[in-house]
Amino acid sequence: MIAANNPALTSWVTVPENSDFPIQNLPFGIFSTPDRSRRVGVAIGDCVLDLAQVAEAGLFADLAIDAAVFRQKSLNALMRAAGKNGIRGLRDRLSHLLRDDNGELRDNAALVDAALVQLSAVTMHMPVDVGDYTDFYSSEQHAYNVGCMFRDPDNALLPNWKHIPVGYHGRASSIIVSGEPVHRPTGQTKADDADSPSFGPCRLLDFELEMGFVTFDGKPLGQRISTGEAEDHIFGLVLFNDWSARDLQKWEYVPLGPFLAKSFASSISPWIVTLDALEPFRIPGPEQNPTVLPYLKQTGATHVDLPLQVIIETPDGEENLVSESNFKHMYWSMRQQLAHHTVNGCNIRAGDMMASGTISGSDRSAFGSMLELSWKGTRPLTMKDGSERKFIQDGDTVIMRGHQIKDNVRIGFGEVRTTILPALPF
Amino acid sequence: MIAANNPALTSWVTVPENSDFPIQNLPFGIFSTPDRSRRVGVAIGDCVLDLAQVAEAGLFADLAIDAAVFRQKSLNALMRAAGKNGIRGLRDRLSHLLRDDNGELRDNAALVDAALVQLSAVTMHMPVDVGDYTDFYSSEQHAYNVGCMFRDPDNALLPNWKHIPVGYHGRASSIIVSGEPVHRPTGQTKADDADSPSFGPCRLLDFELEMGFVTFDGKPLGQRISTGEAEDHIFGLVLFNDWSARDLQKWEYVPLGPFLAKSFASSISPWIVTLDALEPFRIPGPEQNPTVLPYLKQTGATHVDLPLQVIIETPDGEENLVSESNFKHMYWSMRQQLAHHTVNGCNIRAGDMMASGTISGSDRSAFGSMLELSWKGTRPLTMKDGSERKFIQDGDTVIMRGHQIKDNVRIGFGEVRTTILPALPF
Repeated sequence: MIAANNPALTSWVTVPENSDFPIQNLPFGIFSTPDRSRRVGVAIGDCVLDLAQVAEAGLFADLAIDAAVFRQKSLNALMRAAGKNGIRGLRDRLSHLLRDDNGELRDNAALVDAALVQLSAVTMHMPVDVGDYTDFYSSEQHAYNVGCMFRDPDNALLPNWKHIPVGYHGRASSIIVSGEPVHRPTGQTKADDADSPSFGPCRLLDFELEMGFVTFDGKPLGQRISTGEAEDHIFGLVLFNDWSARDLQKWEYVPLGPFLAKSFASSISPWIVTLDALEPFRIPGPEQNPTVLPYLKQTGATHVDLPLQVIIETPDGEENLVSESNFKHMYWSMRQQLAHHTVNGCNIRAGDMMASGTISGSDRSAFGSMLELSWKGTRPLTMKDGSERKFIQDGDTVIMRGHQIKDNVRIGFGEVRTTILPALPF
Repeated sequence: MIAANNPALTSWVTVPENSDFPIQNLPFGIFSTPDRSRRVGVAIGDCVLDLAQVAEAGLFADLAIDAAVFRQKSLNALMRAAGKNGIRGLRDRLSHLLRDDNGELRDNAALVDAALVQLSAVTMHMPVDVGDYTDFYSSEQHAYNVGCMFRDPDNALLPNWKHIPVGYHGRASSIIVSGEPVHRPTGQTKADDADSPSFGPCRLLDFELEMGFVTFDGKPLGQRISTGEAEDHIFGLVLFNDWSARDLQKWEYVPLGPFLAKSFASSISPWIVTLDALEPFRIPGPEQNPTVLPYLKQTGATHVDLPLQVIIETPDGEENLVSESNFKHMYWSMRQQLAHHTVNGCNIRAGDMMASGTISGSDRSAFGSMLELSWKGTRPLTMKDGSERKFIQDGDTVIMRGHQIKDNVRIGFGEVRTTILPALPF
C-alpha cells in the first residue's frame, strides 16, 4: 500500500465531514475557472489543487514529469507521461505536500493562493479524451433480470454468459461529464402489434448504474494483457450512467447489438479515483462456476466493496433514492474484463473507458436500472411528489453517487448528475 | 463539379497508364521518409507531393490554412482547420499547381526537388486518428447470404433490416494501415456438440470487403444531420478490410453483437479519396421498398459505381482473384447511414470512420467474404498453387483494390494489403 493510503493522515486543507475527498483519495480531474484554462487538478476537501501551478512552482521537480502535461485539456498526456508508477509517485508527493505536518506548500501563501481553488468556483470537464469505449455486461443479477423479462426465467442467462465477460463497443464521442444535460433521443421504434416502425421521441428512457475504469496505454497490437498484469494498466474509476433508450434498443439490436439506443449520451463523474485510493475496499469476488478458461483465472482481492446510489431528482428539486447497489455485485472483475478484451490481440490506449454494465444486487432495491426497478414498467415507483415513474421523464435529473468508509476514512466519487431535456423538434 | 474534375486536365508530373492517381484524383494521406517526419501528402502518379513543403513555400498563402496542419501525424488537424469547403479549395489549388500548363511549381526546381517524392520511397501511415469507428451492414445480398446460412432462406432478412441501416460500434484502436501484418487472433470458441468452450487460435479467419468513409466534424451533441446535409460532413473514402474471426463471433455475439471477433484488426488503404474525386461515378441507388421513414428519404445520385476486387496472394507470391464486387451494391447510402447515426443526437467528429459492411453483389463471384464465397466452408476455392481455401490461412496476404474509369480518367484507391501471421504463442 502506498503512503497516501495511511488512514492516520490529515491535511492542512480543511476536509469537511462527509467529504468524498480526504487526503487519502486525491482523485484527478480537469477543471477551469473564468481565469484558468482547462488543466489538471486534484480534489481535496472542498477545494481543487491546481497541479499546473504546483508543477510550475517546481514542487514536482523530483518526479521527472514535464510540467506541460498539467496544462492540458485532458489527463491523457499526464497518463502517457507518467504511467501507473509515475501517477503513484505523483499521488504520494501530493499526499506529502498536503499533510498537515508539512509546511512546504502550506507555508507558501502566494502559491496556496494561486493553486488552491474552491470546488464551488470551478467548472469540471471531461477528464480524458476517450479513445475507445467498451461496455461490459458483467453483473449476474442484471443479466438474470433481463433474461427473465425478455426470455425465460429458467434459462435467463445465455449459454456464453458464465464463460465470457460479454461486452460490446460503445460510442466514445457522446460520453459527457456530470452537469451536461441530455435531450431525450429520437428514433425508430416498432410496437409488437404494428406492421412497420414509427418515428418519434424515445418513450422508455432509462439509466444504467455502472462504474467505468480508465486505462493507461497497454501493449502493442497483437499482444495480450493477463489478469495478473491488468491492474498495471488501470488508472482509476468513475461513476458511469449508461443512458439507454429501451424502445429504440428493442427494435434495432438484433443481430449486431445496441447502437442508437446508447450512443446519444453516456454520463460520467468528473473525478477519476485511482485504484490505489480504493485499495482499502478491495475484496475477493464471487466463486465462479463453471470454472473459467485459464486466461480468465485470477486470485486475490479482485473486486471493490463500493456502495452506490441512484437518485431521481424530480423537477421540484426533491431527491428520491431509487436504488442502493454496490460495485461488489460483479461476476466478472476488471482484471478479467481487460484480459478478455486483449486476448485476441486488441490494443488499449491511455484514456480508454471500460464500463461494467448495469450493477444490480439480488435485492429489488439494489437493481441498477428503471427497466429492472419497475420490472418493464409493471411496477411503477412512487416519487415524493406523488408522481409515478416507470422510466425517466423530461425534467428529471438522475444522480449517481458512491463512497465507502473504512477506519473513519471516506473515499468517494462525488456524483454524476444529468438532467433530461425534452426531445428536440424534428 | 469542381475544376479538379476536368477530364481534359493533365499534369506535368508523369502519370503512368493504369495509375490510380491522375490529377483528377489527388487523394490525401500521411507519409514519412527516413528524412521526413510524418506529414500530409497527396498522391500524383508515382509520386507524393509533400504539402508541408508546398505550404511552407507560401503556395497556399491564399487559402487561409495554417501551414502547421500539414506537418502533423494525422489529417485530423487539416480536416478541422479546412472543413469541406477548405479541402475543396485546397484540392482545386493543387490541381492548378500540378496542371501541365502552369509553371508556378513546375519551374521551381528547388521546391519540386524538395516536395515531390517517389511513392516507392515513402512509408504510408494511418491517415487519420480515428475517434469512433462504426460498421454498418448495408449490402442486401450480404445480409441475405448470412441469413440463408445461419437462419432461414425464406426469412433471410431480419424484420428491421429494410427499415434501419443496421450498424454497430467497432474498435478504433486496432484500425491499421495497408502493409501492417496481423497475427491470427486467439480466443474462445464452442463447437455445437461441445458442453463448454475451448481456447485457441481462430480457425475461421475471414476478410470482409468494405468501403469506409471518413467524416469532418458534425454538429454539437443532440443535433441531427439530415440526408441532404450528410455529404457536407464526409471527407472521402478508403478501402476497408473488416477482418473477422467467424468462430469467435459465433460464440460471443449474442446478445450484444460482435466484439473480439472484429477488434483484433481492421485494415484500410492509406489514401483518402475525396467524395469530390468520385463525383463522375455517382449513380442513383436501388429502389427502397418498403418506403423508408421520412428522415431516411433522399434523392439524386446517392451511390458510387466503383468496381472492387479481393485477391488472395498465396505464400508463393501468386495473386488469386477471389471476388469482383462493386460499391454500388449497397442498399443503404452513406447519406442514410450518417442521417441514421445522428438521428438520436449522436455527435460525429473529424476523423470518424464509417464502414459500409461487407459489399456483396448478386453473383457468386461478387460475394465479399470467404464465409459467402466458400458458403460456410462447403465450397472451397482452389488457388493457382493447387491449395484450397475455405477461410484465410497463415501466410496468405489479402489485397483489396478498387478503381473506376470514365472519359479515359481512372480514379482509384491503390490497395489495402495485409499478411496474416501465425497466432502468437500463449
